[in-house]
Amino acid sequence: MGESEERFLRLWGEVVDLSRAAALASWDQETVMPRAGAAARAQVAATLAGVRHAKLVAPELQEALERCAERAEPGSALAADVRLARRVLRRVRNVPERLAREKAEAAAHGHEAWAAARARADFALFRPALERLVALAREEALCVAEEGQSAYDACLDEYEPGARESEVARLFLELEGELRALVARAAGSSRRPDPTAARGDFPVEAQVAFARAALTSLGFDLARGRIDAAPHPFCTGFSRDDVRLTWRADAHDFRPAFFGLLHEGGHGLYEQGLPVEGERRPFGEAVSLGVHESQSRLWENLVGRSPAFWRWCLPRLKAALPGARTLEAERLLPLLHSVEPSLIRVEADQGTYDLHVLVRFELERALLGGTLAVADLPAAWNEGYRARLGRAPRDASEGVLQDIHWSMGAFGYFPTYTLGNLIAAQLFAAARRTLGDLDAAFARGEFAPLLGWLRENVHAHGSLLEADELVRRATGRPLSPRDYLDARTAEVREYYG
Amino acid sequence: MGESEERFLRLWGEVVDLSRAAALASWDQETVMPRAGAAARAQVAATLAGVRHAKLVAPELQEALERCAERAEPGSALAADVRLARRVLRRVRNVPERLAREKAEAAAHGHEAWAAARARADFALFRPALERLVALAREEALCVAEEGQSAYDACLDEYEPGARESEVARLFLELEGELRALVARAAGSSRRPDPTAARGDFPVEAQVAFARAALTSLGFDLARGRIDAAPHPFCTGFSRDDVRLTWRADAHDFRPAFFGLLHEGGHGLYEQGLPVEGERRPFGEAVSLGVHESQSRLWENLVGRSPAFWRWCLPRLKAALPGARTLEAERLLPLLHSVEPSLIRVEADQGTYDLHVLVRFELERALLGGTLAVADLPAAWNEGYRARLGRAPRDASEGVLQDIHWSMGAFGYFPTYTLGNLIAAQLFAAARRTLGDLDAAFARGEFAPLLGWLRENVHAHGSLLEADELVRRATGRPLSPRDYLDARTAEVREYYG
Repeated sequence: MGESEERFLRLWGEVVDLSRAAALASWDQETVMPRAGAAARAQVAATLAGVRHAKLVAPELQEALERCAERAEPGSALAADVRLARRVLRRVRNVPERLAREKAEAAAHGHEAWAAARARADFALFRPALERLVALAREEALCVAEEGQSAYDACLDEYEPGARESEVARLFLELEGELRALVARAAGSSRRPDPTAARGDFPVEAQVAFARAALTSLGFDLARGRIDAAPHPFCTGFSRDDVRLTWRADAHDFRPAFFGLLHEGGHGLYEQGLPVEGERRPFGEAVSLGVHESQSRLWENLVGRSPAFWRWCLPRLKAALPGARTLEAERLLPLLHSVEPSLIRVEADQGTYDLHVLVRFELERALLGGTLAVADLPAAWNEGYRARLGRAPRDASEGVLQDIHWSMGAFGYFPTYTLGNLIAAQLFAAARRTLGDLDAAFARGEFAPLLGWLRENVHAHGSLLEADELVRRATGRPLSPRDYLDARTAEVREYYG
Repeated sequence: MGESEERFLRLWGEVVDLSRAAALASWDQETVMPRAGAAARAQVAATLAGVRHAKLVAPELQEALERCAERAEPGSALAADVRLARRVLRRVRNVPERLAREKAEAAAHGHEAWAAARARADFALFRPALERLVALAREEALCVAEEGQSAYDACLDEYEPGARESEVARLFLELEGELRALVARAAGSSRRPDPTAARGDFPVEAQVAFARAALTSLGFDLARGRIDAAPHPFCTGFSRDDVRLTWRADAHDFRPAFFGLLHEGGHGLYEQGLPVEGERRPFGEAVSLGVHESQSRLWENLVGRSPAFWRWCLPRLKAALPGARTLEAERLLPLLHSVEPSLIRVEADQGTYDLHVLVRFELERALLGGTLAVADLPAAWNEGYRARLGRAPRDASEGVLQDIHWSMGAFGYFPTYTLGNLIAAQLFAAARRTLGDLDAAFARGEFAPLLGWLRENVHAHGSLLEADELVRRATGRPLSPRDYLDARTAEVREYYG
């Protein structure tokens, strides 16, 4: 390794260490920290962010990076590092410190205002904060947009590098008609899933123990991770050797804890499978939120809701949880594949989820594009739900105020959920073409072949390939909604006739 | 607040934040981190230490500090901040970076070599590492010693600011004779504590729940702290509002978990009582390890082993732990006041503990002073134990290799344990002079008067006063072994006749 490479990797490694310290501070706060510690913790977080920023904009990092850029062989890991680091630095350097600080303050205040507004279902309490957040997001987009990028492109790029608004819009256009047709088909069916099919008395600790065992069977390595309770399920990795998942449980419905952990476990399997040679290097990180989400959705939905999986899982669930003894596959499976328009995204079923995302995608594009004023957002939200889901919120708390994202200034995040669905389906179809009958393996509790394929075709690449290239190489074609729509169609046929 | 004060406090606050982030990384590693995460965590710790060091030596901090020094009113909080920050900076600036790095490496390597040597009871495996550690400690002492300070003084000052080798030696001189006389008196007594008096079957979770309730009664605020399992008991505070204790338990003896948590809880009460106005400022920190240890030992030994405390506690212990129903105060109390020479410091009883410390104090003084070669240390250790405790280790693992401190380059730490004993006894005697009959309060489970006195006379001062001045003001006299020896004597009379 050359001197400049060594220097660059040392400096970058420090940036990664500071991100990891911040991630730990955040994990601790979400899981175990006494609430009284919040004020001191906020200062720690701010200091770590400040130090990380200073390390990123330091001339010595820029110099070392440019030396590496001169030397890196095209296609090498170092070339990927250079490309990725330049992207991060461009965003960091193009945003004036004043704007970065204002954004952080607006997000902190916005989050507070949003929580208060949601509690009272009163959008007016959130409106000024959101107006400021939109204005700052547009200002930031102007600073970081590359040639030909729209303001929304620049937002999207933060979460899904290389993605374009126009491309995402095209994918949604292909999706929307067929998805709504499937919703209509389900609505017209005489069959209805039994809403009680997953209910029972399930002690929370036994639920978590069961989910833990199931995750181990899937391949999640508990010697390189943890599972803890938290108000919100999430996955965070401090390195590929320390990946932590959280859960919340319902004592009368095993689904929130179980599917929540399958979902976070999918994220965790990705983190644990990142390339060991990429440790503390730019190319060792996950490539995009969409690809990350594809891993969580693949394990949660394509594996975890499949009949074959339940042939293996249900007897085990019954053995582990006495309250599950009355569950039946014939009642459970239709419930796990509900298609039922609803108002709350995080509680939406798989059959309608992307329509929730579509409403948000269109609204945030319009906000960023300047064609929708924040004052008009609640009405536009309600209209979007009426048009796409045929239902209208009774108040803002189950409408425009339901999600946290915009309150933190996160515009361009929502589409990654649907990108995750599409990528998951396309990867899963490709894996089955290569591996053959995965159902038989699932029914025996064998998940190693699938995990092995994902390790090789997705996880091990880290960020060496860009997301679209990764999908193309793994599946043989560019990303399209085809495999996803085929899977959705088959499910609706199966469970609604 | 003036501009320079504001600037200094902002810069110092960042240093505190980095220390807190490092403390969190360490707490997490000791309690919940998967072992596989150790390599990545070591890098995070090194980066945080490096950034903290850079912040401390930055000219802007020095400048802001000197501005404050010009303006601070004598006796003000700012004047204390200046004094304390100067002390930290002097140590940091006087140690060349090369030496600091060598020390860190030698400590990391020393710890590994020590663990391997201890596992095989072979001092030769540790000897080269210890030789290097002693040499580096002497070199560092030369860099930081103030006029008139010995090399050992400079080491001691790191843990007990302002303490002097000669003064500690004088205290030990006063202690040793009487302590050994008490040991001899106990040995000559026909009374012997029953070693089974604390034994039974105690489910670990019930033990911890009981200790948690007891700590709450003492005044430890669980809304501003946590209690977790760890291989070693310790207390760490990320702010006065987030103070964490750890425990380890023995399923057949309630003492390790219970007294361990009383001890760590004493540390925790101090941390929770530090002045709120000192948050993130130099004067907001605990004043010295000796004073810190006085708080842990006061609650563990002077409160927690007293007959009055057990009048309140024993019925509760029996109610909480079915296995405790056969315990009897008449058998338990003598065991809690054993005076029985042994070989292992961390398992030593209160009657002999300071003799263990004395052996180490003399040896580390000799190592630092250059009058004892590392090669001769094991023989000197064994001779020290024979002379002071009348017992000789069978091998190095229960002798010179038993403690971790020297392997990390911590010379001058041991005496703070005994200083803690002396300060605790002197504070406790003073509190009783003011508050009257504490026993009656303890027997009713009332600890607020004592805690209130400690809050006012110790905790609330933070580091505004130096340790010796704090003791003098709280107790009306300079530190002396008198109260401690009186208490020890009374106990030996009580339990050995």
